[in-house]
Amino acid sequence: MNEIESTFATARQKPNGTSTAVYLLLIFMAFGLFQAIRFLDDGPVDGAAPARVTPGAQELPRVLLSLITVIVTARLLGTAIQWVGQPRVIGEVVAGIVLGPSFLGRLSPAVTEFLLPESSMPTLEMFAQLGVVLYMFLVGLELNSDQLRTHAGSTVAISHASILAPFLLGTLLAAGVYRAYAPPGVTFTSFSLFVGVAMSITAFPVLARILTDLGIERTSLGAVALNCAAVDDVTAWCLLAFVVGVTQSNLLGAIMTLVLATVYISLMIGLVRPGLTRWLRVATGTPLSNESVAWILVGVLTSSLITEAIGIHAIFGAFLLGAIIPHESDIARSFRHKWEDVVSTMLIPTFFAFTGARTDLGILSGPFDWIICGVFIAVATAGKFGGTVVAARIMGLDWNAAASLGILMNTRGLMELIVLNVGLDLGVISPALFTMMVLMALATTVATSPILRRLVHLERST
Amino acid sequence: MNEIESTFATARQKPNGTSTAVYLLLIFMAFGLFQAIRFLDDGPVDGAAPARVTPGAQELPRVLLSLITVIVTARLLGTAIQWVGQPRVIGEVVAGIVLGPSFLGRLSPAVTEFLLPESSMPTLEMFAQLGVVLYMFLVGLELNSDQLRTHAGSTVAISHASILAPFLLGTLLAAGVYRAYAPPGVTFTSFSLFVGVAMSITAFPVLARILTDLGIERTSLGAVALNCAAVDDVTAWCLLAFVVGVTQSNLLGAIMTLVLATVYISLMIGLVRPGLTRWLRVATGTPLSNESVAWILVGVLTSSLITEAIGIHAIFGAFLLGAIIPHESDIARSFRHKWEDVVSTMLIPTFFAFTGARTDLGILSGPFDWIICGVFIAVATAGKFGGTVVAARIMGLDWNAAASLGILMNTRGLMELIVLNVGLDLGVISPALFTMMVLMALATTVATSPILRRLVHLERST
Repeated sequence: MNEIESTFATARQKPNGTSTAVYLLLIFMAFGLFQAIRFLDDGPVDGAAPARVTPGAQELPRVLLSLITVIVTARLLGTAIQWVGQPRVIGEVVAGIVLGPSFLGRLSPAVTEFLLPESSMPTLEMFAQLGVVLYMFLVGLELNSDQLRTHAGSTVAISHASILAPFLLGTLLAAGVYRAYAPPGVTFTSFSLFVGVAMSITAFPVLARILTDLGIERTSLGAVALNCAAVDDVTAWCLLAFVVGVTQSNLLGAIMTLVLATVYISLMIGLVRPGLTRWLRVATGTPLSNESVAWILVGVLTSSLITEAIGIHAIFGAFLLGAIIPHESDIARSFRHKWEDVVSTMLIPTFFAFTGARTDLGILSGPFDWIICGVFIAVATAGKFGGTVVAARIMGLDWNAAASLGILMNTRGLMELIVLNVGLDLGVISPALFTMMVLMALATTVATSPILRRLVHLERST
Repeated sequence: MNEIESTFATARQKPNGTSTAVYLLLIFMAFGLFQAIRFLDDGPVDGAAPARVTPGAQELPRVLLSLITVIVTARLLGTAIQWVGQPRVIGEVVAGIVLGPSFLGRLSPAVTEFLLPESSMPTLEMFAQLGVVLYMFLVGLELNSDQLRTHAGSTVAISHASILAPFLLGTLLAAGVYRAYAPPGVTFTSFSLFVGVAMSITAFPVLARILTDLGIERTSLGAVALNCAAVDDVTAWCLLAFVVGVTQSNLLGAIMTLVLATVYISLMIGLVRPGLTRWLRVATGTPLSNESVAWILVGVLTSSLITEAIGIHAIFGAFLLGAIIPHESDIARSFRHKWEDVVSTMLIPTFFAFTGARTDLGILSGPFDWIICGVFIAVATAGKFGGTVVAARIMGLDWNAAASLGILMNTRGLMELIVLNVGLDLGVISPALFTMMVLMALATTVATSPILRRLVHLERST
């Protein structure tokens, strides 16, 4: 039963005399007026064709179609990949690559131009960038600072080992591939620092997701892994901010950036955080108002803008603000609850599509490129997995736990893609290297679930 | 106390021998490597300056600043206007106008170019358009079809009178101003139909808000007003869809559009609605999953795309899908809960800024323009208020109730702005007429609260 029709039907069924008369009169007048209009209408004012639609309005259907394509593909592949026991982020990343020049663009440029036209790319890119900014804020909110404090000692050592080892190996590898793969005009310092950082990333959200999927997030292994990943996160973003600062300017500029960044971080931790905590204590228990949501949003955008202006990336500001808001506050929880879906269903798939559009497997032309790509995967894994295992053994974990922790820390997922896009935007890495490292991120993330499942099974059976 | 620092502090306080050794070793290796890197670094690969950032990445800070400007101005003026007893939407609309060429653009073009540069306009426009699509979906969700059915008889008569009267007066006025104000190339049929529809809009959401602010949303006046506004909404959007169809094409095209629109509406009501209702019954009680959110979003975008392709506007498809989803279903409620803030805090202010950028009070050059502007306000009010009062009196309401209902129906708010932007995009109205009718929308909406408060007070004191 539909209400619009039934409303009309009811009106027709129970008329009283007067209302029917008024009604008929009005309809009669309308009809008469239209005859008059048609009689009066002697064509347009002058012969020029009307400027029918603004460019923006014409763009809307293309953007709608692009968004539908991106969201549906991400959903379908994300769900399909879950059937084979992988986290859905893998499927969504693959969806982006499938829609890009590597597959759809190769199979049918016409279909690509129809579904994801060049003209809607700037909009998608802006969506992707804002999506990443909001996403990093949510990741910052997830960061549980209290838990960090409890296990600090051994966690920090393992975590820093798990960053330093791949960082060192990454810079060594960078020395090897600098001549062949660095974009023209990039200094070795920028290049090697960036490759080093890109190797050292651990995807905190994907790692947390894998732990939950396997039901081991509350075991001691889960707790240590979450802590290490959280410390990794903070450290890696600080490193990235440093590298971006160095790359963007000369020595003086880099020092300036470093000083400003330190001042900003100190202000946020020393002044903004206590203020926020006091405000949150007052606001506890009250539902999150529209007003608060708006000001938090303004805060996120402002913090991003400040870090962007300082010369470290916008995402760092968003992450920092998220990190200084207490994890378990009502406001953090309900902001997360409201925005997580918006970000994960609409904006992040756009980011993957944008990343996919920049990933071109066709660039990897010969066997040499693929060998180098394999070397990247091997070195990244050796550094991250190896570094973690050695540090964990030294800290007294058994082999099985150390290996589990190592494979978990090797998860790079979405975070790696964010870093790689920053690098490509800065021009520090070439499109070919970008593509290789996207594959590296995919490979290390794909490897985690099955291997970890084996290790956990082994652990339980002994 | 900050956790990042404290984490490091804890690590420094409780070291054991081995971890300190590993740690120092790693730091030493890092230091050594950097010396090596600096030694190796003999400048960039070739002399060309690196392509530092992509255009999109360069755009991000501008867009961030624009969004901050838009959101903060909307917040401040929205809150300020509430102090004088007006609904906050007025303040937000005024905020958009203040940021546009009428005020800020006149006062300081340099500041405008800094805060809202031409280059970030396409992004803001796309945000605004998607915001309106999502907003119309939420308005559709708000529509309480059961309530519509109960009071149908008299409500429909009053409501249609309140559309037909301003529509007729609007087309008459259009005949008077056609020569002077219609854009070149627009036929009188399109022009008069559009002006007629633009006069007949009632802003359902603003009206609902005003009723809630005065605490009379559960009185019989409130119920009748909500019902009338809901019927007005459905009717006005159907009329607008018709006008857009007529404007976009010739007679044959218009008939085609009408047929396709009827088929689509019938399919949505006849096939999609029962399917959705069944699905919702199954899903009742379960929390809204990320998966459901994604598919609802895809549904909204797809329905918008279909109506856009048919030749009636995208917003109609979004509204229609919202309207056929049962108002009180769990899914409608939790989708509203999640998306309302996102839409109202971020996207709708962007729409107001975009509308404001197109509203130029400077275009109204002479006293004649301002007189015509006054005539528009008078005719719009005479039609909407007059038509409602006469119909309500005939249906047996007393003078006070009839007048209250009349002034409520005269609220045009946000809805009017959406219609006007559609008209400007289609090229049916000129920028001058657009500006006049924005002022008309503001004036009729501003008038509602104080007059209604008086009438309600009068009612209570007698």
